[in-house]
Amino acid sequence: MDKHIVLLPGDGIGKEITDSAKQILGAVASEFGHSFTIQQQEIGGAAIDQYGSPLPDITVQACQKADAILLGAVGGEKWDALPADMRPEKGLLGIRKELGLFANLRPIKGFPSLLHASPLKEHIIDGSDILIIRELTGGLYFGRPSERQDNGEAVVDTLYYRRSEMERIIDKAFQSARLRHNHLTSVDKANVLESSRMWRDIVNEKSEEYPEVAVEHELVDAAAMKLITQPSQFDVMVTENMFGDILSDEASVLTGSLGMLPSASVRSDGVGLYEPVHGSAPDIAGQGIANPLGTILSVALMLRHSFQMEEEAAAVERAVRECLEQGFHTADLNITNGQLVSTGQMTEAVLDNL
Amino acid sequence: MDKHIVLLPGDGIGKEITDSAKQILGAVASEFGHSFTIQQQEIGGAAIDQYGSPLPDITVQACQKADAILLGAVGGEKWDALPADMRPEKGLLGIRKELGLFANLRPIKGFPSLLHASPLKEHIIDGSDILIIRELTGGLYFGRPSERQDNGEAVVDTLYYRRSEMERIIDKAFQSARLRHNHLTSVDKANVLESSRMWRDIVNEKSEEYPEVAVEHELVDAAAMKLITQPSQFDVMVTENMFGDILSDEASVLTGSLGMLPSASVRSDGVGLYEPVHGSAPDIAGQGIANPLGTILSVALMLRHSFQMEEEAAAVERAVRECLEQGFHTADLNITNGQLVSTGQMTEAVLDNL
Ligand SMILES: CC(C)[C@H](C(=O)O)[C@@H](O)C(=O)O
Ligand SMILES: CC(C)[C@H](C(=O)O)[C@@H](O)C(=O)O
Repeated sequence: MDKHIVLLPGDGIGKEITDSAKQILGAVASEFGHSFTIQQQEIGGAAIDQYGSPLPDITVQACQKADAILLGAVGGEKWDALPADMRPEKGLLGIRKELGLFANLRPIKGFPSLLHASPLKEHIIDGSDILIIRELTGGLYFGRPSERQDNGEAVVDTLYYRRSEMERIIDKAFQSARLRHNHLTSVDKANVLESSRMWRDIVNEKSEEYPEVAVEHELVDAAAMKLITQPSQFDVMVTENMFGDILSDEASVLTGSLGMLPSASVRSDGVGLYEPVHGSAPDIAGQGIANPLGTILSVALMLRHSFQMEEEAAAVERAVRECLEQGFHTADLNITNGQLVSTGQMTEAVLDNL
Repeated sequence: MDKHIVLLPGDGIGKEITDSAKQILGAVASEFGHSFTIQQQEIGGAAIDQYGSPLPDITVQACQKADAILLGAVGGEKWDALPADMRPEKGLLGIRKELGLFANLRPIKGFPSLLHASPLKEHIIDGSDILIIRELTGGLYFGRPSERQDNGEAVVDTLYYRRSEMERIIDKAFQSARLRHNHLTSVDKANVLESSRMWRDIVNEKSEEYPEVAVEHELVDAAAMKLITQPSQFDVMVTENMFGDILSDEASVLTGSLGMLPSASVRSDGVGLYEPVHGSAPDIAGQGIANPLGTILSVALMLRHSFQMEEEAAAVERAVRECLEQGFHTADLNITNGQLVSTGQMTEAVLDNL
């Protein structure tokens, strides 16, 4: 198949880790007889430096023509003092919104050789395998008004959702649950928010269309507790944008290897943006020691979700797993009796296993 | 001193645990020469059953005349099907708002003999001692509009704060930090919300009035991670209502003994409502096996924060600690070689140590 990919390295370690991912894409293409054209554009701080905007038009236009987008990471102290509208994160929020990438998928599953680094006791984290689905283009993130009022004596943000926005993400969640263990936990704050009560109504309505999926409702505060005390009880979790931001980051530290976690932000036609969950880590940028595996696993998600290349995705995931079993680890990980390697060496190891 | 306390047992185990607390208050009064008058009123499901409202006028009026209020817990399946405005939780939200109890204080500190039950590894939870301060009467919880729009095709909730509401809770947090380890973590989502940017501005302004307090800003998603990976790095944490709801519940499971945690909801003149963090546990109600210690420790907070009785508060806290050291535990706890006791026996044990 021919696929067109836009690469957005972003800031900090973004360049190094997306370089690794490019090599993996090349290997998959030649191994499986595909053709991937890769075009690079700027986003975030790098785009501010070069174009004066965290999301220049040229980047948006390129992404609009892409089958999928791979992003490294954005942000860094250098741009922290800029006004809110000119901050690197605005590039990320902007591209999600411009492309309508409403469904953020975050699989949380540990690797046996890394679980010892979990902050949780082993019997608690053992067997956890969660897919968090977060609504990504609505709610408090984009509602208007979002402004100071009364000469700065008051301030307002707006949690706004259209019913159709809730319906499509909830549909996505039911469909994902059907491909996994038929268990969906919907998270809301229905005892306080009207938006949550509408959310809960829609989940209950939709559940009749997916009778094979068992549905639970959990309040966001209770979910934040249960992720820690009983993470293995979850299968698919679905929630709105802000709750999803908090809960998915909370969940991302449970397995003890944040640097390994991939994410996908997709829309209905399969176009998606893929990025590791970790940040731009400016403190170690340029040293060649960053962990490329979260980005490489994001490539696997791209192959699966945007290109329907399940076999290729599974091959990449297997190659990563084998590297860990062989004891290779970057500086952010620790494997007993393992071998500490650089970004480049880790990438080589994945290529060897592929 | 003469103090007037309103007791709101609420639902489920609420009656049993506030009965225990009443005995402790009696013992403190005679031990230290105070006079506490205690008047009982209904709230939550019990009030719905008796008065047709989760917060009847008679309860509000009684609370308005009180020096402090002690609450058990509200809620239960029995009332879950009622419309939102008639649910037990509305009683809790209503009394906070009616009395202007804007500062929710949640101390999170483990007990040595119970830490083994923490979901976290021992070296992670060790040494943690956090005070979470949550704004309790503003934000998404009370902002208007909170309604369906467009014939049910859309929905809106409103995150609204007045500057003065932010100022008073942030002041409270700085003052609390000064009484502890002079370290304040302010949690917001300033990269997305205008309300968070105003919040951050106010924290920075106020920090000049409290030069001895070191201030850190943390994004809410990062804070949700750090609570799990480095809980011992926090001293006082302050945040707005919804973020505080999520983070304080997340934090409450870290020590492994949710049943032990007290909370206070206070306003500037010292009037406060005190309640355990745990819920109404309808499944074990009436069996005499509930853990009364979260409520008894809430009494200690009442003595300290509403009555300025530091010595009395410390005595109650010491008595509770001694019970645990003696090995007494209720069914929700587990102490190696300890002795399983009932609600009444645990209360006796505290009284003996007092
Ligand atoms: C950078 C920030 C605006 C963003 C978000 O809150 O969505 C990030 O935390 C994320 O989760 O991707
Ligand atoms: C019962 C509910 C409305 C309440 C809240 O969200 O404030 C509870 O979760 C709490 O934290 O006291």
